[in-house]
Amino acid sequence: MKILKSTDKNFQSEFDKLVHRSDNDMSSVIPVVKDIIDDIKKRGDEALVEQIAKFDKWDATNALKISNDEMKNAYNSLDENLKKALKIAYDRIKSYHEKQIEKTWLSFEENGTILGQKVTPVDRAGLYIPGGKAAYPSSLLMNAIPAIVAGVKEITICTPAVNGSVNNLLLATMYLLGIKNAYKVGGASAIGAMAYGTQSIKKVDVITGPGNIYVATAKKLVFGDVNIDMIAGPSEIGVLADNSANYKHIAIDLLSQAEHDEIASSFLITDDEKFANLIKDEINTVLPTLQREKIARVSIENKAAIIVAKDMCEAVFLMNELAVEHLEIATDNAFDYLHKIKHAGAIFLGHNTPEAMGDYLAGPNHTLPTGGSARFFSPLSVSNFVKKSSIISISKNGIDELSEACMVLAEAEGLGAHKKSVELRFNKQ
Amino acid sequence: MKILKSTDKNFQSEFDKLVHRSDNDMSSVIPVVKDIIDDIKKRGDEALVEQIAKFDKWDATNALKISNDEMKNAYNSLDENLKKALKIAYDRIKSYHEKQIEKTWLSFEENGTILGQKVTPVDRAGLYIPGGKAAYPSSLLMNAIPAIVAGVKEITICTPAVNGSVNNLLLATMYLLGIKNAYKVGGASAIGAMAYGTQSIKKVDVITGPGNIYVATAKKLVFGDVNIDMIAGPSEIGVLADNSANYKHIAIDLLSQAEHDEIASSFLITDDEKFANLIKDEINTVLPTLQREKIARVSIENKAAIIVAKDMCEAVFLMNELAVEHLEIATDNAFDYLHKIKHAGAIFLGHNTPEAMGDYLAGPNHTLPTGGSARFFSPLSVSNFVKKSSIISISKNGIDELSEACMVLAEAEGLGAHKKSVELRFNKQ
Repeated sequence: MKILKSTDKNFQSEFDKLVHRSDNDMSSVIPVVKDIIDDIKKRGDEALVEQIAKFDKWDATNALKISNDEMKNAYNSLDENLKKALKIAYDRIKSYHEKQIEKTWLSFEENGTILGQKVTPVDRAGLYIPGGKAAYPSSLLMNAIPAIVAGVKEITICTPAVNGSVNNLLLATMYLLGIKNAYKVGGASAIGAMAYGTQSIKKVDVITGPGNIYVATAKKLVFGDVNIDMIAGPSEIGVLADNSANYKHIAIDLLSQAEHDEIASSFLITDDEKFANLIKDEINTVLPTLQREKIARVSIENKAAIIVAKDMCEAVFLMNELAVEHLEIATDNAFDYLHKIKHAGAIFLGHNTPEAMGDYLAGPNHTLPTGGSARFFSPLSVSNFVKKSSIISISKNGIDELSEACMVLAEAEGLGAHKKSVELRFNKQ
Repeated sequence: MKILKSTDKNFQSEFDKLVHRSDNDMSSVIPVVKDIIDDIKKRGDEALVEQIAKFDKWDATNALKISNDEMKNAYNSLDENLKKALKIAYDRIKSYHEKQIEKTWLSFEENGTILGQKVTPVDRAGLYIPGGKAAYPSSLLMNAIPAIVAGVKEITICTPAVNGSVNNLLLATMYLLGIKNAYKVGGASAIGAMAYGTQSIKKVDVITGPGNIYVATAKKLVFGDVNIDMIAGPSEIGVLADNSANYKHIAIDLLSQAEHDEIASSFLITDDEKFANLIKDEINTVLPTLQREKIARVSIENKAAIIVAKDMCEAVFLMNELAVEHLEIATDNAFDYLHKIKHAGAIFLGHNTPEAMGDYLAGPNHTLPTGGSARFFSPLSVSNFVKKSSIISISKNGIDELSEACMVLAEAEGLGAHKKSVELRFNKQ
């Protein structure tokens, strides 16, 4: 694991590599994904079943839909502890997202003119949940709850079923969420089916959810025909810590990111070189004890970095440049830093807030912008599942007041019928 | 102009064609646009200048940037009436968008845990404003004001300058808005330059603004590396009217959409066949009197439709299926219909609210979802120029309360370091 010092001669070029860590080069994948989607557009379920046979190695003929019994049985088979934990997560995530609900508003002018903004849930949302080893019930909770809170009436889930079977915990979570329409379809096929519809799967309006490069590419290709949440890459953490933090905590937090994926990134920025070395050593000590040592080791060796800044002010500056998905501020008085944080998907404050809490049940969404896109993307939220309509109602007096200016502008833009449409109403007064 | 009756035998198939009016087939354009963008990524300004020489026919060497003097002189040359009208539009648009400002919020739990959501403007926004015949100052106002209200510090404008010159009214509007960084670059080149940066033009975080198929395709290709507002197609209006409306008003409103573009669409849905015929005749009467008769005629002949529904209830149902960009409700008691409208970019209520008012100065944004994408896209707003970060601060008591459930879930997902990161803090108590 490399340690960079901001005073090193080659620091800027090394740091720039970290800033430009995102390499969403989809060009090699696009033709494959485009063929998959085009075939679904053309042949619907028939194409889907063929693709599933090819990629997931099972015969999905008349077996695409997951039955409610499968979900119920899975839920009933869970340990009580797990049921309880899922329920706590469900309640806390729901309670947080309810605070995001946007309301329709109206504003009134003295002359009777009314302006406003109407908020309406989308009719249908499609959630993609990865399968296999990365089948996380937490992903399902985090995608479904904002849609439910937004008031979406029809929620569709797609998840791959290698050899036809779906992770038991995922099925159980579907039951907890009251999901009615879930299908055993994965990858680009799932995105194509939800974007354009097939005989079995209704076309949706919004598609959200994580996935590999094929899923991400498919989401980008269908964007515009449906809305999508964001294009996400490998997960990442940035920890901003001074030596008031417990080095063991910071080491395990960095490792908890690394264990996700060989290409996950973990960054620590601190003002204390001794502290940096302590953490480096601790990571090497803990690595061999991890269940997922192999994955974490590759990630730590290739994707992690510890940066020693001149002071915490520079540390914050550098962290903003990285614009990380998960940002821990592990200092005393962490709130003092909050106003300085410009770019981060989620901000974890203080010594008692490990990132893992946010993954499961703190409440905020764990679907977050990666690869520096926290500069412009937001966490998945209720907003992803609603759309707005402007409201304009001009009164008789209102049109008298505004007609002249409106006609001058229409005239200047050379749009005669625009002008006339105002003039006709104006003259009537 | 065709009249369809919902009781006609072939109505559904004819209506479906209107519903599926959006044909965003970019496949033929993608390779061209990709080459343009890749060249800008590689060669920056050099590529830009070459592309401008090719497409806009002038030498942009050292002349990309628009000087503040050009803007000021343009503004000073305007008629007082036009200055006044621009100022009224500016003030009303600003006042409406200020109501959209979202605030950072925090919520507190009894044990001291704090959750919240931080709202931060993006650092840099890039606005694309078309040039030539479609150079509309209103587009500049509608794109720039939400960015200004959001608190974006650096706003970049790109607009094409055929033969090197920019529309005077656009320059004047830049002055009114206090724009500092504006460049004479158009089409896919402008989108590429703003998305990836060149020597002259800084990389931005968000790109918004209308444009032709090349601009729309370029926006889709750069999406993910920057955020974009939406992918917009030809403009369109849907009018929901009963015979309480003035047929002359409705006719001119339909024509005001048609005069935008040969491929703009105008739809009227009414419950009164006689009224429908009156409007059809009036359109034919007024068409020859329009400045932009040629454009409007092609649009009306190929893209417009009048639909006679059984009753207003069916009319509303059909209008929701169309999910139009601009929706006029030209009835008495138009507000009675508002709760039934599910999909529309902007809703214009009552007999005194011609769509043209919304184009210029009612206040709400005129950049709206087209082609049925009002099912999932929203009007351009202040939200397009901010991003959010979740805030999580767990207290000592908070982690004690939540640790067990969190560890159960981490265990169930097989993520040992996640579990450990919680356990270490928990044991400390």
